[in-house]
Amino acid sequence: MSNPSIEPLVEYADASAEVRAVYDDIMATRKSDWVNNFWNVLAHDPANLKRTWEALKLVMGPGALDPLTKELIYIAVSATNGCEYCTYSHTASARAKGMTDAMLMETLAVAAKANETNRLANALRPPVDPQFLPKG
Amino acid sequence: MSNPSIEPLVEYADASAEVRAVYDDIMATRKSDWVNNFWNVLAHDPANLKRTWEALKLVMGPGALDPLTKELIYIAVSATNGCEYCTYSHTASARAKGMTDAMLMETLAVAAKANETNRLANALRPPVDPQFLPKG
Amino acid sequence: MSNPSIEPLVEYADASAEVRAVYDDIMATRKSDWVNNFWNVLAHDPANLKRTWEALKLVMGPGALDPLTKELIYIAVSATNGCEYCTYSHTASARAKGMTDAMLMETLAVAAKANETNRLANALRPPVDPQFLPKG
Amino acid sequence: MSNPSIEPLVEYADASAEVRAVYDDIMATRKSDWVNNFWNVLAHDPANLKRTWEALKLVMGPGALDPLTKELIYIAVSATNGCEYCTYSHTASARAKGMTDAMLMETLAVAAKANETNRLANALRPPVDPQFLPKG
Amino acid sequence: MSNPSIEPLVEYADASAEVRAVYDDIMATRKSDWVNNFWNVLAHDPANLKRTWEALKLVMGPGALDPLTKELIYIAVSATNGCEYCTYSHTASARAKGMTDAMLMETLAVAAKANETNRLANALRPPVDPQFLPKG
Amino acid sequence: MSNPSIEPLVEYADASAEVRAVYDDIMATRKSDWVNNFWNVLAHDPANLKRTWEALKLVMGPGALDPLTKELIYIAVSATNGCEYCTYSHTASARAKGMTDAMLMETLAVAAKANETNRLANALRPPVDPQFLPKG
Repeated sequence: MSNPSIEPLVEYADASAEVRAVYDDIMATRKSDWVNNFWNVLAHDPANLKRTWEALKLVMGPGALDPLTKELIYIAVSATNGCEYCTYSHTASARAKGMTDAMLMETLAVAAKANETNRLANALRPPVDPQFLPKG
Repeated sequence: MSNPSIEPLVEYADASAEVRAVYDDIMATRKSDWVNNFWNVLAHDPANLKRTWEALKLVMGPGALDPLTKELIYIAVSATNGCEYCTYSHTASARAKGMTDAMLMETLAVAAKANETNRLANALRPPVDPQFLPKG
Repeated sequence: MSNPSIEPLVEYADASAEVRAVYDDIMATRKSDWVNNFWNVLAHDPANLKRTWEALKLVMGPGALDPLTKELIYIAVSATNGCEYCTYSHTASARAKGMTDAMLMETLAVAAKANETNRLANALRPPVDPQFLPKG
Repeated sequence: MSNPSIEPLVEYADASAEVRAVYDDIMATRKSDWVNNFWNVLAHDPANLKRTWEALKLVMGPGALDPLTKELIYIAVSATNGCEYCTYSHTASARAKGMTDAMLMETLAVAAKANETNRLANALRPPVDPQFLPKG
Repeated sequence: MSNPSIEPLVEYADASAEVRAVYDDIMATRKSDWVNNFWNVLAHDPANLKRTWEALKLVMGPGALDPLTKELIYIAVSATNGCEYCTYSHTASARAKGMTDAMLMETLAVAAKANETNRLANALRPPVDPQFLPKG
Repeated sequence: MSNPSIEPLVEYADASAEVRAVYDDIMATRKSDWVNNFWNVLAHDPANLKRTWEALKLVMGPGALDPLTKELIYIAVSATNGCEYCTYSHTASARAKGMTDAMLMETLAVAAKANETNRLANALRPPVDPQFLPKG
């Protein structure tokens, strides 16, 4: 069930030139021939669509970390936040970049374990060990 | 400031044989000569200490993902949950496994961006694209 | 799919006098002729229903902030928490109070951006600037 | 470090009659002779102070659950949300109602485990089993 | 709608001996004749399945807290995290251990109230009262 | 206590031309003569600094909502996420744009109340009312 507040989805055929330019860049960057619904909804605010896509493309691109590692981090955060759509879309993105079943299961095991120990630390509040502090 | 409810920290010298066995395994696994405060607090419940450590050792060890990638995922989740102690301790762990400044900054950029887009998706609730669904 | 644990919904026709009094006040306050399902479920605990409605009416009413601004804040928090039902119901409330598409998109852009920078600050933990501290 | 935006704390000696009435009720209910800082800050908005205290007193009082069980639930949620002040204050409240070290450690173990499995379920999204659905 | 990334569910008939051993223990512990989908999905990673089940069995079993109290804490955390599947499955578990409608409604009222006051404390950041600090 | 992983803070005197250009824009936009620590930490990744600042400037600027309303939304989200630094810095920003004590207290009351009702809805999962769905 989708949120009725912002509708309908902005399809390519009905999009303005400004929106189409973003859609074209999404498809070119991903080497695909379609644009997923997340962007079709955001397109109701073309400036926000453009800004969000360009920042995401930059952040998720290659750098000190490879793109697959970035997708795994994305999945871990989405699982933590309970974002259903993101779970579906980024699992698909990660698979397209080479994620195997074993990698997904391990990513989730780490994310889940971090959520467990985060709460123990948040409640027991051990003092930060001096060894973790800067030397200088 | 640490939580006064469970104190004092259980130091090695005062620990039971059961707790010392876990502390010894933590130091042996990490090739270090000290145990950080998180474990010194958990030691008030020796069964929980042992279970938590053994599960963490298994989950964070090598597998389909390498240990450094796992630490990056851990940091991303801890940033999402705002866990201060975990931020300090796992940044240290990740550095010990080779994380550079650039890798940390990129990990946080991805985690932060996922937190941003998760909220757009959670509110706008685009329908899940059929392309993301199973074929069969 | 609704949670089967507490059912069925408490409809007006089947409600006790205590529950009807709350339903009547909800409809009178909103100038509407129906009560949404959130209240029909809470009605299984009439004391809690009354307390929750009265507090909400007070908090969301006019004061130092106008009711529409309060609805936008509500939507931003609900997006952050990933609450599906709240997203639907408060988007409707906000529209009834004059929210336009552009206002919704900007509210979500701000909420999403805050979620992004919150995580950068939670992980990097810059020291609080003295300029932000009280003078006295 | 406290938030400088709302200060100073509203002490009993400087409080209005409206605020003192709430402070008196807090002390009478708790059979104590002081009011903790959470209420001294909220007192900058006397109507909100009164509403928040009265709702809390009602919710945390005896009912289908005993007050100690309610404090344990409160601690579990506060650990999940990473609320430092709440961790300190409700650990103290729970101790005053009979919580032992062992009960605290088990409460946190359950809360932490729930945070772990919540993330596995949020990401893997198993279909809800028909056995969990209502019969009728 | 379930996540297509990890499928199909691992049914008993198709499971390895390692997975069947866990399924058998789940059914024996619960005195039931079926295994719910959460475990059927986790079974794609047999080592993680075994570890997660064994830790959960230990944490949720009797100790300083009775099993029903633990289920209520579980529900409170799941509501806080917005985990749909966990809400369904642990409401069912809690009912099987004696939870009444009134107990569920009170658990949720406490959890919801804690979520409210956690945010007031997180933003207003009252200084921690010296009375909450350790004596020594 | 600040996170030692990324240090020291990048002061103007030591900054590269690329970083200085961002600092200059921050000061010009805010009509101030200093840059707060959040940016001094982010400056370790100049591309991320520039991208984050430019997106934030755009999102928080005037549009369908006025800048003060945007600051209130920011504070509400930061309280929900428990971000200490953000609480301090955005309370200061909001005050500079005209926020009164009464407006702050009401913003927090709404945010806190939304966090409460979000959890009731997340657990009880009332079916979405047909009145909230799109007509077409």
